[in-house]
Amino acid sequence: MVRPIIFGEVAGIDEGHEFLDRKEMMPSSFHRNWGAGIDGNAKNGTAAIVLSGGYEDDEDNGDEIIYTGAGGNDPNTGRQIEDQSWDNRGNAGLLTSMDQGLPVRVSRGYKHKSDYSPKSGYTYAGLYSVVDAWEEIGKSGFKICRFRLDYCGDNYERKSPENIELKYGKTETKRKKGTVLRIVRDTQISGDIKKLYEYKCQVCSTAIKTKTGFYAEGAHIKPLGKPHNGDDSTDNILCLCPNHHVMFDRGSFCIEDDGSFIGAVTGKLISHPKHMINLDNVKYHRKSHGYR
Amino acid sequence: MVRPIIFGEVAGIDEGHEFLDRKEMMPSSFHRNWGAGIDGNAKNGTAAIVLSGGYEDDEDNGDEIIYTGAGGNDPNTGRQIEDQSWDNRGNAGLLTSMDQGLPVRVSRGYKHKSDYSPKSGYTYAGLYSVVDAWEEIGKSGFKICRFRLDYCGDNYERKSPENIELKYGKTETKRKKGTVLRIVRDTQISGDIKKLYEYKCQVCSTAIKTKTGFYAEGAHIKPLGKPHNGDDSTDNILCLCPNHHVMFDRGSFCIEDDGSFIGAVTGKLISHPKHMINLDNVKYHRKSHGYR
Repeated sequence: MVRPIIFGEVAGIDEGHEFLDRKEMMPSSFHRNWGAGIDGNAKNGTAAIVLSGGYEDDEDNGDEIIYTGAGGNDPNTGRQIEDQSWDNRGNAGLLTSMDQGLPVRVSRGYKHKSDYSPKSGYTYAGLYSVVDAWEEIGKSGFKICRFRLDYCGDNYERKSPENIELKYGKTETKRKKGTVLRIVRDTQISGDIKKLYEYKCQVCSTAIKTKTGFYAEGAHIKPLGKPHNGDDSTDNILCLCPNHHVMFDRGSFCIEDDGSFIGAVTGKLISHPKHMINLDNVKYHRKSHGYR
Repeated sequence: MVRPIIFGEVAGIDEGHEFLDRKEMMPSSFHRNWGAGIDGNAKNGTAAIVLSGGYEDDEDNGDEIIYTGAGGNDPNTGRQIEDQSWDNRGNAGLLTSMDQGLPVRVSRGYKHKSDYSPKSGYTYAGLYSVVDAWEEIGKSGFKICRFRLDYCGDNYERKSPENIELKYGKTETKRKKGTVLRIVRDTQISGDIKKLYEYKCQVCSTAIKTKTGFYAEGAHIKPLGKPHNGDDSTDNILCLCPNHHVMFDRGSFCIEDDGSFIGAVTGKLISHPKHMINLDNVKYHRKSHGYR
């Protein structure tokens, strides 16, 4: 029997729902795989993941989860024994979910080490957005695919990670507003960079016309926030149009040390003599998207 | 003496700060105008506004404010006596702040009617983002310029509007993360529309390339959420690239009933025979951006 892939909430299974075991998740298509932690594929996206302690590099801060992709680990010990790959169907599915803004159902198992794990069985933690993806060398010394997932459900009673208290099974379901596909943050310094380039994209020279002038976005080369912790500094910001900002953040193209592009864009970065760019960060961006 | 315009937090003035009168806001450049409610202009943007009961159409839900622009009212009675204009420097400044993601300091005065107004003087309510701008006919029968401002400060202790409790003067200032320039929400239905168009923009046919496929955004013709309350329905969604999505949301261009563009874009909307578009919503979008 082929079960359909379902994105978003599954009828009758509210946030906080408790499952005795993984098998219970299957009939409703909540999570269709018994063994694998990721339910999804490159074409459709990933609809659900289970945190079950299988990967040593996972970090769980409640509403923000740093998740290690699938593959490369010893099924018996859980240890990484080889590199992970973006071609793995679960990992590719998480990239697709990020690009298409599809929500991912997250569940925690009793073996997963965190303050939010149930003592037995599995608990549904709610809908999360995949907001970032990169690769790095894990504790084991092998390449791992990493994802940041942020809670995006409609349970407004959930507070900051520090004082979160999941009301198991009693959650009131609010009106759906849709998931967050993309948040663009503007910083003090990006305003100056945008003015320097007169809002023209450093890739295509387009300046987006608005009623009062022009629009551009400040793109951080080494991303702000955990786990990248890039700086909000002049040498870490590019002035890009929204289209090239999306492509840059998703690693569709990267920048070589001499400014030329690699990946889905050809040509060279337009650069103002006053604007120095941090080459360590350009290298970090390349590496985190799989270029050397 | 010409005081500089300052965007974002002003040193020494925390959220909840109480001013005895408007004059006290001036030396620090917190709000440089004694009379006008808006401190800003088209070139630089608007840095601060004061809600002081001058406009009958204002709506204040705490973290979300529907604000009426400047102009057209009788200074003595506060009543609208003529149309407002986007050319007014304060209104144009609020558009610039929206386009450039500049934060706006919001203060409430004792004459402003809301649950959040102080009994005397003026209270600083924190930083807000201008997230939407449109025009409509006000209670008076005259055209008014309207803005939606959402709280974007770093006070994580602020909760949903229903149970907000401002801690006057005791707010802990957290690390700045920058203001939100743009949030793109993805909905269940926009996914189908994007697939129908194979992620190609209905304006320029561009499909943004990512590592796993393509990226596009579902643009709501009549916006979701208050005060527009557009539907998340197939006939209210366009498949656009991020660049044209920004321009469409900001009214840089609109769509005529026959699909041709008006404004900063020429040509005609690419439309799939299966995709019916709601002409009432197209008209609503035109009207809210000043086209007839």
